[in-house]
Amino acid sequence: MQDQHIASAFDRDLEAIQAQIMKMGGLVENAILEAAISLETRDEERAERVRKGDKAIDELEELINEEAARVIALRAPTAVDLRLVLSVIKVSANLERIGDYAKNMGKRTSVLSQMAPVNDSAGALRRMAKEVERMLKDALDSYVARDAELAQDVIDRDTEVDQMYNALFREFLTFMMEDPRNITACMHLHFIAKNIERMGDHVTSIAEQVVYLVTGTTPDENRQKADKTSLQA
Amino acid sequence: MQDQHIASAFDRDLEAIQAQIMKMGGLVENAILEAAISLETRDEERAERVRKGDKAIDELEELINEEAARVIALRAPTAVDLRLVLSVIKVSANLERIGDYAKNMGKRTSVLSQMAPVNDSAGALRRMAKEVERMLKDALDSYVARDAELAQDVIDRDTEVDQMYNALFREFLTFMMEDPRNITACMHLHFIAKNIERMGDHVTSIAEQVVYLVTGTTPDENRQKADKTSLQA
Repeated sequence: MQDQHIASAFDRDLEAIQAQIMKMGGLVENAILEAAISLETRDEERAERVRKGDKAIDELEELINEEAARVIALRAPTAVDLRLVLSVIKVSANLERIGDYAKNMGKRTSVLSQMAPVNDSAGALRRMAKEVERMLKDALDSYVARDAELAQDVIDRDTEVDQMYNALFREFLTFMMEDPRNITACMHLHFIAKNIERMGDHVTSIAEQVVYLVTGTTPDENRQKADKTSLQA
Repeated sequence: MQDQHIASAFDRDLEAIQAQIMKMGGLVENAILEAAISLETRDEERAERVRKGDKAIDELEELINEEAARVIALRAPTAVDLRLVLSVIKVSANLERIGDYAKNMGKRTSVLSQMAPVNDSAGALRRMAKEVERMLKDALDSYVARDAELAQDVIDRDTEVDQMYNALFREFLTFMMEDPRNITACMHLHFIAKNIERMGDHVTSIAEQVVYLVTGTTPDENRQKADKTSLQA
């Protein structure tokens, strides 16, 4: 009976932390979309709200870390339970980084709004961001449901994001060569593209946590990395 | 007596993990320097060794994570002890990211070696990398010695790295505008500069962990972020 009490107290604690993770995830999803829309519509005020909103995301990460440490100290979980508590620390760290990238996108929107638009680049970036936001939603759903299959699906979809980034990298190079007046804008747009691609990496890392939690093994470490631009001449 | 036994067993465990952290830190320091030298000397084989060496860094992170989980499960540390064990997870995650950036630098070296050098950019990047490597060394020393003063010094020095990055960003823009044939090389060089700047952020994050461990409070969260290029038109 005593054991059962302890177990369910732990479960309640864990559920409470996971609720905070979902709250944090919701804020981050929103930040990705809002940052992308601000960029496309050249809406500086909206971008400013994304920048300011990052504080709440950072605070949630700190809170989740404290809660996780408290649960470990109080319940002394072992084996799978411990793995679960440690995973919230990793997942919240990934969410915090994604939030940072969205914030950085918000900053660059203020600069880019002062410059002439470069083709439909902002639209392409918004579509790429939307894809990452969908992946994040599924990664968090897979986390709560301990659904390794959905998590693996998220991991596979990151290849598409990498391919979108590759195409944009080539496009920006072309725009810069065609007209040097595009150079500054393209540098910023390229950074945004790279940051969205990195968001995808962090989403993938969350999904990999899920696979590890459910199956006890890390997903294929040698998966093809589809961002080839660092090898591009 | 029993209590003392448990305490010293925990201390031994913790020291063993910290030794692994120092080993990992040594590999990462070496990767930063080697990547920077390969770039400057256009030495593709040396760059290739950096890329391959990242595997050992990743494996150490996994090992450290497993060891930390084992110690938590076995010793059920609380309060300060728990904080110490959790810090190794954070520090090793930071080291792993820095290693990734060095690996990426190694990849780009292969591409850049095929192109004409852009002024002394590679030398400037090597100096910037050297500064980050020194910061990392001090951050790890401060971690082992629990030296909050040295850690704060590392945090302060990150401003210089940010300033070096700002100067390079402007330089690369100028080179690209002067001669469009520089554009592709400058895109890669710029990425390397940004990656070194990000390495500095991760070193800072390690130093912040030290301040938190020693003083129990996070260093001033509102410190001036000196990379202003995202606001640059």
